[in-house]
Amino acid sequence: MSSTQKFSPRSVPQQSHSAPRPALRRTIGAVAILGATLSIGPASADPINISDFTLSNGLELVVIPDRRAPVVTHMIWYKVGSADETPGISGLAHFLEHLMFKGTAKHPTGEFSKVVATIGGQENAFTSNDYTGYFQRVPTEQLKTVMEFEADRMTGLQLTDAVVLPERDVILEEWNQRIGNNPRARLNEQIDAALFLNHPYGRPVIGWRREMEQLSRDDALAFYRRFYGPNGAVVVIAGDVDPEQAHKLAEATYGTVKRNEIIGPRKRPQEPPPVAVRSLTMADARVEQPFLQRVYLVPSFATAAKGESEAIEVLAHILGSGSSSRLYRTLSVDKPVAVMAAASYDSSALDMAKFSVYGSPRPGVTLQQFEAETDAVIADVIAKGVSADELERAKSRLIADAIYAQDNQATMARWYGAALMTGASVQDVQRWPDRIRAVTAAEVQDAARKWLDKKRSVTGFLIKDTSPQAEKRS
Amino acid sequence: MSSTQKFSPRSVPQQSHSAPRPALRRTIGAVAILGATLSIGPASADPINISDFTLSNGLELVVIPDRRAPVVTHMIWYKVGSADETPGISGLAHFLEHLMFKGTAKHPTGEFSKVVATIGGQENAFTSNDYTGYFQRVPTEQLKTVMEFEADRMTGLQLTDAVVLPERDVILEEWNQRIGNNPRARLNEQIDAALFLNHPYGRPVIGWRREMEQLSRDDALAFYRRFYGPNGAVVVIAGDVDPEQAHKLAEATYGTVKRNEIIGPRKRPQEPPPVAVRSLTMADARVEQPFLQRVYLVPSFATAAKGESEAIEVLAHILGSGSSSRLYRTLSVDKPVAVMAAASYDSSALDMAKFSVYGSPRPGVTLQQFEAETDAVIADVIAKGVSADELERAKSRLIADAIYAQDNQATMARWYGAALMTGASVQDVQRWPDRIRAVTAAEVQDAARKWLDKKRSVTGFLIKDTSPQAEKRS
Repeated sequence: MSSTQKFSPRSVPQQSHSAPRPALRRTIGAVAILGATLSIGPASADPINISDFTLSNGLELVVIPDRRAPVVTHMIWYKVGSADETPGISGLAHFLEHLMFKGTAKHPTGEFSKVVATIGGQENAFTSNDYTGYFQRVPTEQLKTVMEFEADRMTGLQLTDAVVLPERDVILEEWNQRIGNNPRARLNEQIDAALFLNHPYGRPVIGWRREMEQLSRDDALAFYRRFYGPNGAVVVIAGDVDPEQAHKLAEATYGTVKRNEIIGPRKRPQEPPPVAVRSLTMADARVEQPFLQRVYLVPSFATAAKGESEAIEVLAHILGSGSSSRLYRTLSVDKPVAVMAAASYDSSALDMAKFSVYGSPRPGVTLQQFEAETDAVIADVIAKGVSADELERAKSRLIADAIYAQDNQATMARWYGAALMTGASVQDVQRWPDRIRAVTAAEVQDAARKWLDKKRSVTGFLIKDTSPQAEKRS
Repeated sequence: MSSTQKFSPRSVPQQSHSAPRPALRRTIGAVAILGATLSIGPASADPINISDFTLSNGLELVVIPDRRAPVVTHMIWYKVGSADETPGISGLAHFLEHLMFKGTAKHPTGEFSKVVATIGGQENAFTSNDYTGYFQRVPTEQLKTVMEFEADRMTGLQLTDAVVLPERDVILEEWNQRIGNNPRARLNEQIDAALFLNHPYGRPVIGWRREMEQLSRDDALAFYRRFYGPNGAVVVIAGDVDPEQAHKLAEATYGTVKRNEIIGPRKRPQEPPPVAVRSLTMADARVEQPFLQRVYLVPSFATAAKGESEAIEVLAHILGSGSSSRLYRTLSVDKPVAVMAAASYDSSALDMAKFSVYGSPRPGVTLQQFEAETDAVIADVIAKGVSADELERAKSRLIADAIYAQDNQATMARWYGAALMTGASVQDVQRWPDRIRAVTAAEVQDAARKWLDKKRSVTGFLIKDTSPQAEKRS
């Protein structure tokens, strides 16, 4: 749902393409270390003993032991994202994420961040369609401090126009940077809007600019009061901490916060069955390399039939991950018509998910030719399936990557957090390697046949605008 | 916004194409006489004396004299349409329109319709994106009776599952008839969804089928209580009635209904600036003739700069209305590549409006060739403008048609009603011919240049599905 890099580390030459629907992320202090995945994650070959608690006010606590160093990663995830916004007030989930640093009665603006920085910690925050999260990495002995701060701002946020209005300028500038000045992000925005006819995933996480310009203190507070509270949150702690000790700390901090009775079930308008093959073309003077992105509407882990999401995961890997993938081999090596060609799937979404195929043709090759060659590769997988060798390599790679990735404490915390935000459980994450192992070649072919149907897709073409007005427009 | 035929009676051979975003209309009794326009209407050369009253409870009354026969057309218009629905509960405005015939404490189900039929009257009802309306044509002496019935059901509607659930089956069957079994309606639905990235005009008036299936009695009553009431309504009476007499009748009937304090201003999420050229292709086994429809997002009368909507109206006429239009002459006569080619614009919308260009290629001509030829005709108007002769003919025709159309009492009532529902006034309707007269050739060319920009458009291609699965799918 919201990574800028898919789970599997890819060796495709050009990996500047940002995956569909990226979470907005901000780095306040030090370095952002959240470069990793949000796929329904992996577990180790040697299962980690993960503890899962629920406090009486509804807050869920997940503790992931990692005793290698005296540090902890503390994350609080709220079950609210841009897809929960009211139409016409888009960008509010992300705006609120920014405003959450503006202080409470106990702690004035900036104090929390200052404390984290002083103790040598890192912090971050992010918003996706489905969730909003706050993150700190601190020495273990400071865990209670950050929990106190987070518990305090869970209901204690205070906002004045004096802090809200300048912060709105900040998110508008963020829009300029991330979307306005980024033709591929703009393309993504337009593809999402065309792909989702009814579901709010069609709305940009950062918001429609004109609506962002109107966001107010009252909007932010109403949204905060509607969605924030212990029963709308999951705390994930990964690191050098005893689960029972973490539980006690949670009781002492988050446990004192009253349940928010307004928080209800998460239910969004759903998509009608897709019936039209869609495409769109964006011309931009800043485009150096024509680019194609095809996005198919496919099941997420949460909405898929048993095993189907895993088959799609394997399919994405075989089709478009790395230099031995079908797309890369066929289009970049054998023919060659592409400077890059890849595919990706992010299974973590509360509602449906997206399967992307994308790339750029070599100079002299048109986007239409590139599209036709891409279609041929997909048609071949649908018609003939995948080989036993491809299947085994993909599965091994996916599982190995998942295991290696566990070396990163924050990655682990993110996997579990994202899973719990999007309809999966701790067990689902832990059993992911087993389920990947169980995928058969027939299931991969079935998934391709069923889901890589052009009627389920939007194809976006990004081309250089060479018109005389182009300079002025861009 | 919602007619099935544009204002201007066209001589284009095939006029089976239904204009974009048609109002849903039902005929309960006799014949539906509502075939006419909803463009911001015309007035006669000899202005009619129209009276406009507002009762103390907020109800607006418009009386249009027409003393030729002892009959009146009585219409009540509510300022609520599908664009006012809550996402996820689509189709509710139209469903409620059906349910409004299910009776009150005073009058059981069917009584109102039976009375109208018994006195030899006609009745009808319709729903668009922007409004819901109810209509009766009765002998003048029965006017008070229908006003009493309408005033009674304005707040007195009673619903039980016993009547709601079977009526839901009725609207689902209506969906089958109007949308499911009608590839062009389906194409329209998909184009609207692709054209509007954020505005609820992207939602079908009849609803998304899966959401229609879930509509409940509670949904309907909540919607009714939120939007119905005297301050959300305009009554238009055209016919053989004295304005003061009509006013008295309105006071005696509608005047007794309490204002609905919940009704607020009409504010919908607006569109971001369009940036991508979009297209979509639908294949359907039932398609006999390939069909193209290009829809541009353009200003409505309500949102346009002064005079701009009128210039667009003239442009639509010159480009695509009748056998002397640019599209018809060029594509159907001179070349000829088309069996039909036309354009239309409906200015009546509370928010933005649509400008459509559509047609079918001759056998042997591809849709792509047809599109290229259509683009060439549009490009020519943009580059060279229109001739003085074309301009004069279009303006004369539009004004004359408007005057002739006033011969129909119900048409008159509809013009004023639709105008008042979509941000125009009685005066706007009356001055329409003068404003059309004032349009210059330069304004028409400017309108074409500014608004017929492909970035503002979606092009829909409807083709025959000849795949082996086609029979099964359709």
